Amino acid sequence: MGLAAASSEHAPVAACGFAEATAVLRRLTADDLERVNETILDRMRSRAPMIPELAGHLLRAGGKRIRPMLTLAAARLFGYRGLEHVKLAAAVELIHGATLLHDDVVDGSALRRGAQTANVIWGNKESVLVGDYIFSRAFELMVSAGDLKVLQILSAASGVIAEGEVLQLSTQNNLDATFEMYLAVIEAKTAALFAAAAEAGAVIAGCSEEDAEALRRYGADLGVAYQLVDDALDYSGAEDALGKRVGDDFREGKMTLPVVLALARAEGEETAFWRRVIAEGRQDADDFDRARAIMRRAGAIEDTIGCARRYAETALASLQDVRGAKDEACLRALADLAAASTRRSN
Amino acid sequence: MGLAAASSEHAPVAACGFAEATAVLRRLTADDLERVNETILDRMRSRAPMIPELAGHLLRAGGKRIRPMLTLAAARLFGYRGLEHVKLAAAVELIHGATLLHDDVVDGSALRRGAQTANVIWGNKESVLVGDYIFSRAFELMVSAGDLKVLQILSAASGVIAEGEVLQLSTQNNLDATFEMYLAVIEAKTAALFAAAAEAGAVIAGCSEEDAEALRRYGADLGVAYQLVDDALDYSGAEDALGKRVGDDFREGKMTLPVVLALARAEGEETAFWRRVIAEGRQDADDFDRARAIMRRAGAIEDTIGCARRYAETALASLQDVRGAKDEACLRALADLAAASTRRSN
Repeated sequence: MGLAAASSEHAPVAACGFAEATAVLRRLTADDLERVNETILDRMRSRAPMIPELAGHLLRAGGKRIRPMLTLAAARLFGYRGLEHVKLAAAVELIHGATLLHDDVVDGSALRRGAQTANVIWGNKESVLVGDYIFSRAFELMVSAGDLKVLQILSAASGVIAEGEVLQLSTQNNLDATFEMYLAVIEAKTAALFAAAAEAGAVIAGCSEEDAEALRRYGADLGVAYQLVDDALDYSGAEDALGKRVGDDFREGKMTLPVVLALARAEGEETAFWRRVIAEGRQDADDFDRARAIMRRAGAIEDTIGCARRYAETALASLQDVRGAKDEACLRALADLAAASTRRSN
Repeated sequence: MGLAAASSEHAPVAACGFAEATAVLRRLTADDLERVNETILDRMRSRAPMIPELAGHLLRAGGKRIRPMLTLAAARLFGYRGLEHVKLAAAVELIHGATLLHDDVVDGSALRRGAQTANVIWGNKESVLVGDYIFSRAFELMVSAGDLKVLQILSAASGVIAEGEVLQLSTQNNLDATFEMYLAVIEAKTAALFAAAAEAGAVIAGCSEEDAEALRRYGADLGVAYQLVDDALDYSGAEDALGKRVGDDFREGKMTLPVVLALARAEGEETAFWRRVIAEGRQDADDFDRARAIMRRAGAIEDTIGCARRYAETALASLQDVRGAKDEACLRALADLAAASTRRSN
């Protein structure tokens, strides 16, 4: 069974919103997702009380759990009946969580998902060290799943993520950063974990190499689309819906695609404006509104979402290559997730 | 062949110094150690130029390479002929290096092994992210060695190390910290990696479970002895020999054994002194000299070294339990390392 059968031209992929698409996936994987949460809480026990406190704050703070759902859904897609995929999904979420902790220290962020960040509540030192702990526990968990091929996939991804974070640091405040450099950063810091999460679930289920590769490509392109939308929302989103402060990327001088596009299409004084606010980091209270106005005129947000849409379509095409799918509802849910990934508001 | 045969009462373990003992081990493992260095440099290549620069600074800065030598020597001890132990030894050194990078950020250290620290040269953000990268590459390397038992050993150790760092943070500036709490910290932050390094080398060589356990215990006790001496040297060492600033632990308010002992034996005004300098962190220019004088009177350094000596003897006893050793020179070198571990000046 393939997606071509499940969704012919006469039964197109649903045009539902992103929240709806993730809700379907969450229902499909509900039991396993509950086990993932239990596994995470169990692994965060420690003689150091600060560890479960800080980790609990981070992991309970209402993340969408998209990455672990990808692992769970990919395993289910290929008819997996074991429980090792729960460990892998938990490891994936822990790698993501550790990255967030260190990110917030590096960016000096004060708010995430509407809550104060751990670095503000507990401090930077604490966030660095507990992040290391979470990262280590993630590796222990994936080792306990006992599959060397999966270990290669996930350990390689974690290296790529860390490299992406370093690359991002070098593009920050750098007006020479190109679309290609931006893409390299988001492929590494975001898409690599989406790709590994999906591939790991497929591999633990024992699918063919071709199908594992298709899931990897699906995850990678979905990850790029997801990050592109994230970067657009930092300029176009509503403060409440985003759950973090709108304009964080702007204040940190990050060269995301909306800025890259607006700069490439700058008119008159605009180049000097971007130089001052991004390269020199000198920003006044109303500069963020001016940045948004320039982006509107330049079509920068629209084209960022357009770019995301092309990645989402490629992700969908990869799913259509899958030959050994055994769960139609799961295949459909993954397709809907990709299709809806550019229709999200948080 | 056992150590009892190699070193009978008539041929006691050599009373050489620590530098001499490590030099012997370094000669024995020279070819493999060279491969470890090559492997590390190879794994630090990256599209982000900052990564090889920062990692190169850290890893070339003249570390003693004791942990990777333990892995190499343990594998050799049991007659290992493959090359996977090189990957494991490199992974062990990388885990250690990543920990140092994050430690220096957390402690705000400016000097290590006589050189400026990476956080001073490149910055805190950079050190956090490159530390994550090094850590991830360490995992990739150990996965590539393809032995699940070894992966369990090393991934568990890295979790324990991170937990130890968090525990240490909670004992800092805390005059209620006991000897037991101090021991828990150094067992986790230092001894766990020594133990895993030795055990991993033994296991990859295919030794018996009993011998692997003996090597683990040897490494653990050697690690405690090593850290005890380190903590003594922070008060008794010479600035040049130590290659880092003497008194770092004091300035950071760390509750190491010399302080725990001096506080327990405090007379007159001394309790108030420790409260001010350690608990409240209020230190004058001549407080470090006063701390050293108090410690001399209380025998705190002497007894810290005495404690280290007992751990070193236990490490030696574990070596004597080894039944399947195939390399006498290696067995002797490991014994000498333990015996000499309390006779070091840096």
